[in-house]
Amino acid sequence: MELNGNFFEGVEKLLEIWFSQSEGSSGSGDARNVSRYTWETILDIVQCKILDEIHDESQTAYLLSESSMFVSKRRVILKTCGTTLCLQALPHIIKVLEDECGLDTVADCFYSRKNFMKPDHQPHPHKTFQDEIIYLNQVLSDKQHVNENQVNGFSNNKHPGSASYCLGRIDGDCWFLYTLNHVGNTNLIGVDEPDQTLEILMTDLDRTVMDKFVLCDENGDKHDDDKITEMTGIKDIIPDSKISAKLFDPCGYSMNGLLPEGQYWTIHVTPEEEFSYVSFETNWKTGSYAGIIEKVVKLFKPGRFTMTLFANKSSSLDISDWCKPGGPYVEGFCHQDIQTARLQDYGLFYTNYAKKQNMIKQ
Amino acid sequence: MELNGNFFEGVEKLLEIWFSQSEGSSGSGDARNVSRYTWETILDIVQCKILDEIHDESQTAYLLSESSMFVSKRRVILKTCGTTLCLQALPHIIKVLEDECGLDTVADCFYSRKNFMKPDHQPHPHKTFQDEIIYLNQVLSDKQHVNENQVNGFSNNKHPGSASYCLGRIDGDCWFLYTLNHVGNTNLIGVDEPDQTLEILMTDLDRTVMDKFVLCDENGDKHDDDKITEMTGIKDIIPDSKISAKLFDPCGYSMNGLLPEGQYWTIHVTPEEEFSYVSFETNWKTGSYAGIIEKVVKLFKPGRFTMTLFANKSSSLDISDWCKPGGPYVEGFCHQDIQTARLQDYGLFYTNYAKKQNMIKQ
Repeated sequence: MELNGNFFEGVEKLLEIWFSQSEGSSGSGDARNVSRYTWETILDIVQCKILDEIHDESQTAYLLSESSMFVSKRRVILKTCGTTLCLQALPHIIKVLEDECGLDTVADCFYSRKNFMKPDHQPHPHKTFQDEIIYLNQVLSDKQHVNENQVNGFSNNKHPGSASYCLGRIDGDCWFLYTLNHVGNTNLIGVDEPDQTLEILMTDLDRTVMDKFVLCDENGDKHDDDKITEMTGIKDIIPDSKISAKLFDPCGYSMNGLLPEGQYWTIHVTPEEEFSYVSFETNWKTGSYAGIIEKVVKLFKPGRFTMTLFANKSSSLDISDWCKPGGPYVEGFCHQDIQTARLQDYGLFYTNYAKKQNMIKQ
Repeated sequence: MELNGNFFEGVEKLLEIWFSQSEGSSGSGDARNVSRYTWETILDIVQCKILDEIHDESQTAYLLSESSMFVSKRRVILKTCGTTLCLQALPHIIKVLEDECGLDTVADCFYSRKNFMKPDHQPHPHKTFQDEIIYLNQVLSDKQHVNENQVNGFSNNKHPGSASYCLGRIDGDCWFLYTLNHVGNTNLIGVDEPDQTLEILMTDLDRTVMDKFVLCDENGDKHDDDKITEMTGIKDIIPDSKISAKLFDPCGYSMNGLLPEGQYWTIHVTPEEEFSYVSFETNWKTGSYAGIIEKVVKLFKPGRFTMTLFANKSSSLDISDWCKPGGPYVEGFCHQDIQTARLQDYGLFYTNYAKKQNMIKQ
């Protein structure tokens, strides 16, 4: 992983795009037909490399030098950390999927990230969320029918009908989200299959745990990627998954896990004490994430973490349970902020936890 | 009201400060002892004037050339529109209340506003919410014990332990809120009496309604402020209130209403078609605001409106009712965004409505 001075930005930029095929379009309608070579060309622009690849009947998971990419029939997820140019991939992904697969319609698009530890280290447009919104609107307006009567903001800009949010504290721990907003048009485009995504974004992690994610032991012998995945307990977070994992030199760890029906999970570990960060993400279809959250938090032992949960109307998950006073309880942790948002087709839950002994007394 | 070209920013900056008196402090402990002359000196800095004044046993309400000010024993609310310098008042209010009344502690402080229609017309620090946060942190850090171990953000700035939020769409209709965040210290300072505030911030208002708020009729005869308050139905929104109202030249309207026990309501009308805006605000203690919301919306007939509701733990209002799917129903209107936030001592509810026929079809 690239170091910027003695700092690495573990916080990822997460882009999730859903495609569909219009009636007149020819082509396979399957994004998995895009070759690894083509993806490598796009990822060169992003400034990262494919390190490993696994697949099952519904998707391909690429382990990247900076995080991960998942490609299924009509969904592409690109998650990149460090100072990568994640959003630069978007116009290329849209063009390639139209040209090579006939997927000529962006059915939905989500871009999200936690606040960066060091935003000034980021290249344009990633320094500010406002710049990222402008970039996304430009790319998606070129692609989509632009709503000229757009009610909200950006009246002088091209605007594909997007809605952007900041959950949490705008001057502290927060989570930014860009979405398309198909006003009055929910039956025409958008994602109608059940979809839900849980993210646990952890900082200030336990040293004993983080020290496990080094390439070599004290004798200089290389650790085995799969053994680390097993030994740390990561493998058991969601059992019976197809896993691809990698340790980085000198330290750091990434893994992708695949489950049937387009389900995935992915973990990325930046272990350095000064900027430790671990992310966990899954779209595992379950009625309750309580068990997973407990496993992840007990395994990585963060000092603080942000949790986001996204569920569309077709999902079996009921986030209103999470919105009750107190919110989801995690032993040994206090909530700092709890927020909910009802978007066009999605319900969104955001919360920020701190270890009880880490709560600051004034 | 001041016009900036052919534009007036109706959207108000709203500052609410709660004070307390430390044990060693001498003085009346009553902010109402500050003279009108002293307030006028402070309001000169803000660039607005006192036009009228009413009071009851618990508070004084000042009608300003740009909105309103309410002063009760230990609470000061300053709400100013246009291009006024609302926040410039804060250090002076803090100093005067300490020097003249012995109110030497800022128990709580809230600053909030809707997104401006034309932020570039605003003077510093009001052009951006980020600048407003920096200004507030500087003023309140000078006053308060600064939390040097602050967990969140602003590590290189003075930071009084604040938390700031953006509810709604960061690139469209939204509402910004700055709060103090007395982490781990809720029993020492903060507001322990029941407190709740409802705001209805309306745009794109009905022309027939707006045309009522002109100083002179077609014959050039001046309208009577009180008659307009009665004739429009404003007087009946919360009956049995002590009211102070004023029409502006050539158009525009402001009113303050007082009710027992520190309760107030206030309305400000910017009627011009190109930038019509009406705000309604009250801390009226009720278990349900449904009736009030219906009255206000039926009276002013907005095309769109933002509603915020703030209630602390001591309040009898249960905002979790508002968080159920669908949220509070307003006939003829659709929700665009519904958000909730649980802050340290407060629950917050935000929603944005648009008239059904105004919903944009792509």
